[in-house]
Amino acid sequence: MKTNFCRFDGSKKFSYKKFNTGGESEEYDRKKIEKEMQKNINKMKNYQDRFYADGKEAFLVIFQAMDAGGKDGAIKHVMSGIDPQGVRVTSFKKPSVEELSHDYLWRIAKALPKRGEIGILNRSYYEEVLVSKVHELYKFQNLPQRCLTRDIIKQRYEQIADFEKYLWQNGITIVKFMLCISKEEQKRRFIKRIEDSSKNWKLSEQDINERKYWEAYMEAYQKAVNKTSTKYAPWYVVPADKKWYARGFVLQVILNIFEKINPKYPRFSKNKKSKLDDYKKILQSEKK
Amino acid sequence: MKTNFCRFDGSKKFSYKKFNTGGESEEYDRKKIEKEMQKNINKMKNYQDRFYADGKEAFLVIFQAMDAGGKDGAIKHVMSGIDPQGVRVTSFKKPSVEELSHDYLWRIAKALPKRGEIGILNRSYYEEVLVSKVHELYKFQNLPQRCLTRDIIKQRYEQIADFEKYLWQNGITIVKFMLCISKEEQKRRFIKRIEDSSKNWKLSEQDINERKYWEAYMEAYQKAVNKTSTKYAPWYVVPADKKWYARGFVLQVILNIFEKINPKYPRFSKNKKSKLDDYKKILQSEKK
Repeated sequence: MKTNFCRFDGSKKFSYKKFNTGGESEEYDRKKIEKEMQKNINKMKNYQDRFYADGKEAFLVIFQAMDAGGKDGAIKHVMSGIDPQGVRVTSFKKPSVEELSHDYLWRIAKALPKRGEIGILNRSYYEEVLVSKVHELYKFQNLPQRCLTRDIIKQRYEQIADFEKYLWQNGITIVKFMLCISKEEQKRRFIKRIEDSSKNWKLSEQDINERKYWEAYMEAYQKAVNKTSTKYAPWYVVPADKKWYARGFVLQVILNIFEKINPKYPRFSKNKKSKLDDYKKILQSEKK
Repeated sequence: MKTNFCRFDGSKKFSYKKFNTGGESEEYDRKKIEKEMQKNINKMKNYQDRFYADGKEAFLVIFQAMDAGGKDGAIKHVMSGIDPQGVRVTSFKKPSVEELSHDYLWRIAKALPKRGEIGILNRSYYEEVLVSKVHELYKFQNLPQRCLTRDIIKQRYEQIADFEKYLWQNGITIVKFMLCISKEEQKRRFIKRIEDSSKNWKLSEQDINERKYWEAYMEAYQKAVNKTSTKYAPWYVVPADKKWYARGFVLQVILNIFEKINPKYPRFSKNKKSKLDDYKKILQSEKK
């Protein structure tokens, strides 16, 4: 499955107006993609097992999207086969009073993966340049007056880029997904959430109201992607109107990254190996 | 008390060879400085109370020094009068297994002060460019091979500077103290720790061995200070051969910063004020 056409690492610009949320039409073979997905999940299980055993790299996967963009579903379908011991998912909601009394990255630290772990952020510090930008929420973060400068959002792009560079340089591989749906598709999904009573809990009045700010959000996403796309922490803007397509896409990208990291089970030296043989003898000679 | 001659904010360079660990000789009036210190502690209590009530700024105070440099004593004497509810001291020792499985700033997050708090770090992330540099400890931090580049320490200076800029821009005022003693003075203090049995616990064999690396440490300090001195996170290299001088100095610097922040009790609007009067009436009319 092709993914590079939606990869942003600083070498090209993302424009939401030109973006096709439907994906590449020549790849519209749902059966083929779903079959491939099954294979890819098995490949990934294998990689993840070695990744965990190796325990050197950590892997941070960020999901952002408009409401009903498919973040939860993507995490569920792409990660369900993985040993949960090696995966940690953290969802970021509206900051708590305690979180607001700290700098905005404070609550992120707890969610960062250990070496050998995959850390998944369902929403993330990018909210600080998305919803915070659209609704000027930084005004309600108890910041001292001196911090409320006109370029506070511009500063945040740089802070985020610096932070991700630091993570990369300290052994954390980062990938960022923006699941990109059309405004029409969001409407369809919201209506489904209303009609299907098992999905009612997913919808709130606020979700409906936020649609008024669609353009502002798209502009905020566009700017966030373009300001923080780097070789070491690339964005993938995922055509997400078709859920099966988006999920196959996300899995493919993650698999490609694992292939590149190519984790290996730690090798034992000859010395250690021969000790293993000794252990075996001891175990076998134990009295029953 | 003069402090600016030991302030490094990027406008001048620190040279350990030219540095007088004894301090300014015209200020060698111990009685005067200790008397002033008593006054200053009272001033600071007052500032801290307002700082806590205001709850907008946070204040991060970092202490670094060679062994027996006087960090613990300075924290004890300078901060003892302060309401402990508004102060959080964290000592950083050799990283634990869990800490080593994360990036090096991970364990710092837990120690960062909330708005209204003073957070004191007894040792800090600067160890990553001090003891880690001298003994190449980064080789034992389970980093993936790609991170172990020749400029790993240089990268860390930049990471630290970026981190401190982020903190400053998000409402945290930073000051960094390096308590600077001479090698001779360290010897005197070590011998005292050996002769006074109530101080034996403070000394280890390693402390004695580390003296061999004195020059390497001084060079590492010098470089760390010069690479991370900024207007928003200045270093103060404190002449620390005389404890009373060093403590007076640290207190003076902290007080100067409080004076600059000038925290105020939150003011109530007229509307809120008149409500307070209502509350008073309600309280007074309560049946006994």
